[in-house]
Amino acid sequence: MSASRRRSVTSRVLSVLDAFSSNRIQLSLSEISRRTGMPMATAHRLIGELVAWGALERDPSGRYQIGLRLWEVAVLAPRGLGLRGAAMPFMTDLYEATHQNVQLAVLDGSDVVYLERISGRHAVAVLSRVGGRWPAHATGVGLVLLAHAPAAVQERYVARPLVSFTDRTIVDPARLRGKLAEVRRTGIAISERQITEDATSVAAPIRDAGGEVVAALSVVVRAADPQLDVVIPAVAMAARGITRDLARQPLNRKQRA
Amino acid sequence: MSASRRRSVTSRVLSVLDAFSSNRIQLSLSEISRRTGMPMATAHRLIGELVAWGALERDPSGRYQIGLRLWEVAVLAPRGLGLRGAAMPFMTDLYEATHQNVQLAVLDGSDVVYLERISGRHAVAVLSRVGGRWPAHATGVGLVLLAHAPAAVQERYVARPLVSFTDRTIVDPARLRGKLAEVRRTGIAISERQITEDATSVAAPIRDAGGEVVAALSVVVRAADPQLDVVIPAVAMAARGITRDLARQPLNRKQRA
Repeated sequence: MSASRRRSVTSRVLSVLDAFSSNRIQLSLSEISRRTGMPMATAHRLIGELVAWGALERDPSGRYQIGLRLWEVAVLAPRGLGLRGAAMPFMTDLYEATHQNVQLAVLDGSDVVYLERISGRHAVAVLSRVGGRWPAHATGVGLVLLAHAPAAVQERYVARPLVSFTDRTIVDPARLRGKLAEVRRTGIAISERQITEDATSVAAPIRDAGGEVVAALSVVVRAADPQLDVVIPAVAMAARGITRDLARQPLNRKQRA
Repeated sequence: MSASRRRSVTSRVLSVLDAFSSNRIQLSLSEISRRTGMPMATAHRLIGELVAWGALERDPSGRYQIGLRLWEVAVLAPRGLGLRGAAMPFMTDLYEATHQNVQLAVLDGSDVVYLERISGRHAVAVLSRVGGRWPAHATGVGLVLLAHAPAAVQERYVARPLVSFTDRTIVDPARLRGKLAEVRRTGIAISERQITEDATSVAAPIRDAGGEVVAALSVVVRAADPQLDVVIPAVAMAARGITRDLARQPLNRKQRA
């Protein structure tokens, strides 16, 4: 078997995983075949192996979904499990102080990926979800992560056309650069009504033992009554607390414990 | 390429994922090669493809870890994301009522798998972790899930040798059968000091729209001061609330929204 054929099988396995998305969490055999471009017989054989291992599961109607075994392996991702473990006690503190949405996110490429959220039943509605992606420029966590990304990443981001979610979304390059400078200066990002008209996000950076910003913590509150005098110090303190814990127990050692 | 060779490549991909565990969240190329039985060159090529897609990431020291992209796909597992979404508001309610450990778990084979946990900073220490497995007979959530599993699953479980964690762990088949009957009768499982001497778990079943028990919710409290008169009704109410929400919005439709 040549290297190119072997690469082809691995990429087929990954293309099956790629076929699933938050809008398509269950797929039939023929949908997987169509979405991956694999013949039905090939897809059927490959899916059989993935089901046997537990990467996929078959629901009672015969459709396929991502399996629990894959989820178990995936939560070993250091940016998932490790950060989450360090952040969770501070996130519950923040939740109790605000009863709103407390979020933990990292930057991947130019997107924010949400690792965890605690939401109150009466908290203002937010559009993000755990495992979901969002463009960085309009969210509090995104502004924090972008502001501390390498200059080249920031410039590439600012140079491209930016999506506007509300009238308040900052899409002008010069204004966005100014906002990022402000975030670096103050240590806090406030994104007011930039995603939805009724929500304001307050975010702060989480640093690893080496001082690099590896994640962002935010509270999303009602824009009409943001109580920033309480929320800003609470978010800043919680982010510093997580940073301190990461410095005491570096991410890798902590996760191996 | 024959079917057997194709299966072999798929199983190699899965064996790389299998090489990672909570004790080994980062592995070098040679460790992966050794743990999977693949020659270094083969492992290197395969890992390259997994890194390109994002299933693995390389850390600054050159070791490999589970990648964020795999985590993003894996949180689409219905038993992960969907249940978690329905349960989270009730879990935060329970957390606020108790300030202890609030846990959500499902049964997989004969193990409990923990999907989510909210823990207070001063909560009694628990040994479980999100994504972790635990034998069913000694935990509150496990007793609930086992009590509602098919009779054949229960009998197979009870018939095998059971691990004892403390002097209180129920490992005698007749006593375990009696405990499971009690859980079905009362709708609540109380596991007192069965995992650690200082913790008691109170758990209740979560049912899907068809009435089947699909998950269990628990609060783990200090055994010395369990406040069962508060905790039992709180857990029962929260589990019923989640069940009601799942009936209103069946899991699959909810997840597709």
